[in-house]
Amino acid sequence: MKSTDADSREHGPIVNAQKAGGAPRLIALDWGTSSLRAFLLADDAVVLEQRAMDRGILHLPSPGGRKGFEAAFAEAVGRWLGQWPTLPVVASGMVGSAQGWQEVPYVPCPADVRALADHALRLPTPLGKDLWLVPGVRYDPVAGAPDVMRGEEMQIAGALELQPAWAARARVVLPGTHSKWVQVDGGRVTVFATHMTGELYAVLRQHSILGRLMPISAATALPDAGGSAAQAAAFTSGVDAARGSAAGELGHQLFAVRTLGLTGRLATDVLGDYLSGLLIGHELVAGLAASATARSAGAPLLLIGDAALCRRYVDALARFDVRADAVLDNTAPRGLWALARAAGLLPRDSIAPTT
Amino acid sequence: MKSTDADSREHGPIVNAQKAGGAPRLIALDWGTSSLRAFLLADDAVVLEQRAMDRGILHLPSPGGRKGFEAAFAEAVGRWLGQWPTLPVVASGMVGSAQGWQEVPYVPCPADVRALADHALRLPTPLGKDLWLVPGVRYDPVAGAPDVMRGEEMQIAGALELQPAWAARARVVLPGTHSKWVQVDGGRVTVFATHMTGELYAVLRQHSILGRLMPISAATALPDAGGSAAQAAAFTSGVDAARGSAAGELGHQLFAVRTLGLTGRLATDVLGDYLSGLLIGHELVAGLAASATARSAGAPLLLIGDAALCRRYVDALARFDVRADAVLDNTAPRGLWALARAAGLLPRDSIAPTT
Repeated sequence: MKSTDADSREHGPIVNAQKAGGAPRLIALDWGTSSLRAFLLADDAVVLEQRAMDRGILHLPSPGGRKGFEAAFAEAVGRWLGQWPTLPVVASGMVGSAQGWQEVPYVPCPADVRALADHALRLPTPLGKDLWLVPGVRYDPVAGAPDVMRGEEMQIAGALELQPAWAARARVVLPGTHSKWVQVDGGRVTVFATHMTGELYAVLRQHSILGRLMPISAATALPDAGGSAAQAAAFTSGVDAARGSAAGELGHQLFAVRTLGLTGRLATDVLGDYLSGLLIGHELVAGLAASATARSAGAPLLLIGDAALCRRYVDALARFDVRADAVLDNTAPRGLWALARAAGLLPRDSIAPTT
Repeated sequence: MKSTDADSREHGPIVNAQKAGGAPRLIALDWGTSSLRAFLLADDAVVLEQRAMDRGILHLPSPGGRKGFEAAFAEAVGRWLGQWPTLPVVASGMVGSAQGWQEVPYVPCPADVRALADHALRLPTPLGKDLWLVPGVRYDPVAGAPDVMRGEEMQIAGALELQPAWAARARVVLPGTHSKWVQVDGGRVTVFATHMTGELYAVLRQHSILGRLMPISAATALPDAGGSAAQAAAFTSGVDAARGSAAGELGHQLFAVRTLGLTGRLATDVLGDYLSGLLIGHELVAGLAASATARSAGAPLLLIGDAALCRRYVDALARFDVRADAVLDNTAPRGLWALARAAGLLPRDSIAPTT
């Protein structure tokens, strides 16, 4: 079942984790802005095979639009469907946004997998196969602006599948371009907030005066990811500056990235680490404060995302004397499995636990 | 004395405000990153003539470097010096930075005009005329990162010349790309902080997802600057969101610029105004908190800068129930006059007050 088609846009190893006796049951797509990840799943969400492609909704094959989505879809799952034409196909992420293939309205908080399955949208495709699009989630506070997520809800659903206690109550943090801080209660997403940490880092580094002193080659990295002790120290300094900050101070504290470099107090090749620490630190200040009540009530703190980025959050959390209760890799396949099960898309024999 | 040379890079009207009997005494340059403003001054800092050129240190004539500075200098003051070869010439701003013509080390806080004059650097030029470069100011808090200014110190010195009471004690705010909040005590700059408000606005609008929903043509503007009531309301909403924020929340609140647009709660053509209000509001939260003691001690609040931008700050301050005690236009010429006087560059008869 190993892939043989050479697709130059496909990157990363194709994992063939087929277990003995695991027949394919579901094709699950995590289809975001910049990438498309496709999973062939057996019972209990076991990943038999996966593909990662640079086919996010902003990188569709020519000519883009509906034709682009159709072409990317065929690229991602055509071979699997050729072999197993009866498999159901589900997709989460920006593919269901206003800029996606077909918009699926957000489901309001509190939202659980049941509600998401009830509002999934069935989209016919040229492969003669329907694609089930998962809605995102909207949080509308009594006061203040609304917040939205698309894709993260399946990561969260996957995590809650792993431990019944987490489904009862948890604080879930998904670091990234637009980090999410999510509160879960009784299996439902009840409250969440987006922090633009990753995007702020990228635009400030690439387009502001703060990037001017930074060597182009200097990537931010902690020691366990190949970085130096000086980089780790700069990162920690940034976190500590954020930790001691008052309201409104980020715009001021950012200027320190420049002055610490100008005055030689930080080497230019660690200024990016300081900036990273400062921004992640600010996110933690706000996120930990907002989730303090849930923390007091004993809700565990779960980190889900890229391992190197999660490691930064673990180190930053340590400066606040906070420990993550679990650090999870991509839990989207398991969440999409739960969604398909709730939507009645799986054959009856695959619904029962396999262990 | 009206300028007759047509320089295509020169913009804005050439003001010829010569007063009866006002003989030229000083050529003063406010030489920043993007622009170069040259002033021909008579006694009491009266502006006889001024030129504004797109000849900031990042926009020098070819080939740039020392030759570029020399060419820009000749463009700016050559004609004046041809007519009055004995006039002293002083310059403040980024021209004295590490990226400038010649670096002049920062003077530490507390700094007054006397200290700045003592550390001004005399630079010979090819016109056979020395140029006096004014140092910037550095603030080094006991804890935390250093802060720096170059050019604003002359704006401040000019303001303090206007009212002896202000020199005794004042809070000076200079809105801009890198806004400065400055405390003055006994004629000296004692404490200050930079806020990257203007640059954050520009990079987020041009390079982040927040700009995607904004029409390219929609400029932020308040009603008295040609904007609509809806723009003013969006600006106020942004300020109010900032006013109610806790530490660390900017990265989260910024995402509202997107969600308010996505959900149709704000029209896309006022999202820029909301973003502006949010960022200025955060600056005010931090700046007002940091200067609360000076405020209690009765230090007046002075705004110096572009009139339209200052108007935004006045409106935003009103949401905090704070009134600016004065809004001042460009006070750099008067500050450079004070600097030249302190440096002994003016003939004795021009030192005495003329009124």
